Amino acid sequence: MDKIYGVIRNISPLNKQALIKAQMRLDNLTKPIGSLGRLEEVAKKVAGVTGKIDLSFSRKVIFVFAADHGVAEEGVSAYPQEVTCQMVYNFLRGGAGINVLARHIGAEVVVVDIGVAKDLNLKPQPNFKVKKVGYGTKNMAKEKAMSKNESIRSVEVGIEVFEEEHKKNPIDIVGLGDMGIANTTASSAILACITGKDPEEVTGRGTGINDKIWERKVEVVRRSLKIHLPDPHNALDVLAKVGGYEIGGIAGCILAAAKNKVPVVIDGFISTAGALIATGLAPEVRNYLFASHLSLEKGHRIALDYLRLSPLLNLNLRLGEGTGAALAISIIEAGVKILTQMATFEEAGVSREIGCV
Amino acid sequence: MDKIYGVIRNISPLNKQALIKAQMRLDNLTKPIGSLGRLEEVAKKVAGVTGKIDLSFSRKVIFVFAADHGVAEEGVSAYPQEVTCQMVYNFLRGGAGINVLARHIGAEVVVVDIGVAKDLNLKPQPNFKVKKVGYGTKNMAKEKAMSKNESIRSVEVGIEVFEEEHKKNPIDIVGLGDMGIANTTASSAILACITGKDPEEVTGRGTGINDKIWERKVEVVRRSLKIHLPDPHNALDVLAKVGGYEIGGIAGCILAAAKNKVPVVIDGFISTAGALIATGLAPEVRNYLFASHLSLEKGHRIALDYLRLSPLLNLNLRLGEGTGAALAISIIEAGVKILTQMATFEEAGVSREIGCV
Repeated sequence: MDKIYGVIRNISPLNKQALIKAQMRLDNLTKPIGSLGRLEEVAKKVAGVTGKIDLSFSRKVIFVFAADHGVAEEGVSAYPQEVTCQMVYNFLRGGAGINVLARHIGAEVVVVDIGVAKDLNLKPQPNFKVKKVGYGTKNMAKEKAMSKNESIRSVEVGIEVFEEEHKKNPIDIVGLGDMGIANTTASSAILACITGKDPEEVTGRGTGINDKIWERKVEVVRRSLKIHLPDPHNALDVLAKVGGYEIGGIAGCILAAAKNKVPVVIDGFISTAGALIATGLAPEVRNYLFASHLSLEKGHRIALDYLRLSPLLNLNLRLGEGTGAALAISIIEAGVKILTQMATFEEAGVSREIGCV
Repeated sequence: MDKIYGVIRNISPLNKQALIKAQMRLDNLTKPIGSLGRLEEVAKKVAGVTGKIDLSFSRKVIFVFAADHGVAEEGVSAYPQEVTCQMVYNFLRGGAGINVLARHIGAEVVVVDIGVAKDLNLKPQPNFKVKKVGYGTKNMAKEKAMSKNESIRSVEVGIEVFEEEHKKNPIDIVGLGDMGIANTTASSAILACITGKDPEEVTGRGTGINDKIWERKVEVVRRSLKIHLPDPHNALDVLAKVGGYEIGGIAGCILAAAKNKVPVVIDGFISTAGALIATGLAPEVRNYLFASHLSLEKGHRIALDYLRLSPLLNLNLRLGEGTGAALAISIIEAGVKILTQMATFEEAGVSREIGCV
C-alpha cells in the first residue's frame, strides 16, 4: 500500500501557467479564434498536464492489461475463457486490432499478463511483461473476486509497469487497453456500485451476447453486489470484491502516469472502470484523463458522465484492447501539432511583394 | 460542358463483389463481429469504391480550392477579402492548419487558385495550381455570382486538377478543402436553394460573426435567392447564380475522383456545398463520398442529412481548408488497415505448445 500512497501523494494539479500560455498561443494562430474546437481543447489540456507548451509525442505507449475472470464460469460471455490467452498470443504476434491501430499511429504496444488463467509458454520479449497477481480472479457471484492484498498488488503492478517503461525511455502519452473474457461483467459491477445505478442500466452486450445471456449477466452483477456489499467510497474494496486484475492494473497505470505528468488516454468500458478505481483512490487524476471514444457498451456513457469526461470519438467501437485509445491519441497529437507547428499571424506576415494587399 | 458529361458518363456503381469480399474478411478477423463499428463500415465502402480489398493509401492528397466572393462587400464576414490571398500564401509556406494536419496524416496539400481576387506574385511550384476562372465572383446580392460559362469552367478546373495529379502519380484517397472569405454565405444560399429550407435555418456564424452581422448575412442570402430564383434541379444554375468558383472546383474534383474510383472525403460546410452541386450533376457520386466531420456551422447537419451521409467526427471544428477531411482520412486509413492487416482466426491459430488450451 505504501507504493500506492507514494504515488498518490505526488500527483499535482495541472500547471496553470502552461494552460494560460497555451491558450494565448492558440488564440494567435492563423485561424479564427476557437475554430479548431476540440483540437485546441486537448492541446491546452496536454500543456496543463505536462507543464510544457513546446512538446512532441516521441514515445507513445499503449499498455494492454490481460487477465481472466472467475465469473466467466457463469456463462456471461459469448467466448470461452481460453480466448484471453489466445488473444495475448495474437497481440504478441502483431495480428490483433490494437497492433494494427498502434502501428497506424506510431505507438508501441506493451502487453501485461497480470492474471491470465494459463501460463503462456513464450520466450521473454521486451513488449511482454508477466506479472501475474493470480491465475484469474475468483467467481464474484460466489466469493470475492480477489483478496485485499491482491487488489493492492494489481494496482502496484500497474504502477510498476508504467515506471519501468518510463524509466527506460520517457513516455509522452499513454493509452490503456484491456483483454479479459467476462471483464465487462466486472466493469458493470464496479460502475453500478460506484454510481448507485441499477445493474440493468449499466450492463451491456459485451462481445455480443443474446437477450437470454444478457439477462443472466445482469442477474450475476446484481447478485455479486448483494453478496459482497462493496463500499462505493472505498475503491480498493470495490476492486477486490467485484473487480479484475487488469482493472486494478489500469488504475495503477493511471496513477503513475499522473504522478509523472504524462497524459493518459482511456479506452472503452473496462479502461473507464479502471479510471473509476483510480479516481476513487485519487480524485485529482481526473484532470490527467482523456476519454478517447464512446463505446457501444451501454454503461460507458454513464461512466464517462460520472467522470465528467467527454469522449473525442464516437465510432461505435466495442472491441477494447486500447483500440479507441489509439485513434484518440492520434487526434490529441494532431491538437498538439496545431499548438506547436501552426504559424501565428505575426509569423505568417505577408509582405507587399506577394501582391495580396 | 463535354468534359463534364464525359466524366459523369463514366461514373459506375460501387463494386458489389468487393463489398461482399470485404464483409467476409471483416467477419473473419480476430474480434467479435462488427466490434470495430465505423472502421469496418468505411473499410468496406473503400473496397466498394476502389473495387479492391487489398489496398493501401500510398498517396493521399488534399486539394484546397481558393477563391474570392463579390458578396464579401456586403460585410458578411469577420475578415477582409485580402485574407483569402494571405491564407493561400500561408498554405504554400506550410504554416496553416491544413498543412499541420496533412503532415500529421502523411498527405500532400495541393492549392488551387481558382479565383482569388489578386494575383499572387510567387514562382511556380508543384503544389500550387493557378487556374483562375475569374478575379472573384460578382456580388450575388446584386447580380449573378458568375456567368453560365464560368460555372462550367469552375467545375472543369476541378476535374482537370484531379486528373493532372492522378496521372502524375495515382491518388488513393482525396480530401477536399476550401478557402474564400464570404464563402459560407454562398454555401448557405446553395443549401437553402437545393433543400428548400429557409435561409435562417441554414446560415451560420462563419468565421465568428456577431448577431448583427449574422442578421445581415441571412438577409443577403434571402435577397440573392429572391433576385435570381436559381432552379434547385439545375446544379449549374445554382452554382452560377449564388455559388463560388471554389465550390464549383470542389464539385468537379468529386466527379473526377468518382470516375477514377478514388474515395472522396469532404470537409465542412463549403466542401459539402460542393458535394451538393456534384450530386446535383450526378446523383450516383454520393456513394463515393465520405463525410469527415460535423462542422459547428449551423447548416452543415442539414446538408449532410440531405446527402444521407453520417460524419465520422464531431470535434467542433469550423475552420475549413480541409482540416476535418485530413483527420477523417486517417480514420478511414485505419479502417482499411484493419481490413488488410489484422489476422483472421485461422491465421492466428494457436498451437498447443503456447499453453492456452
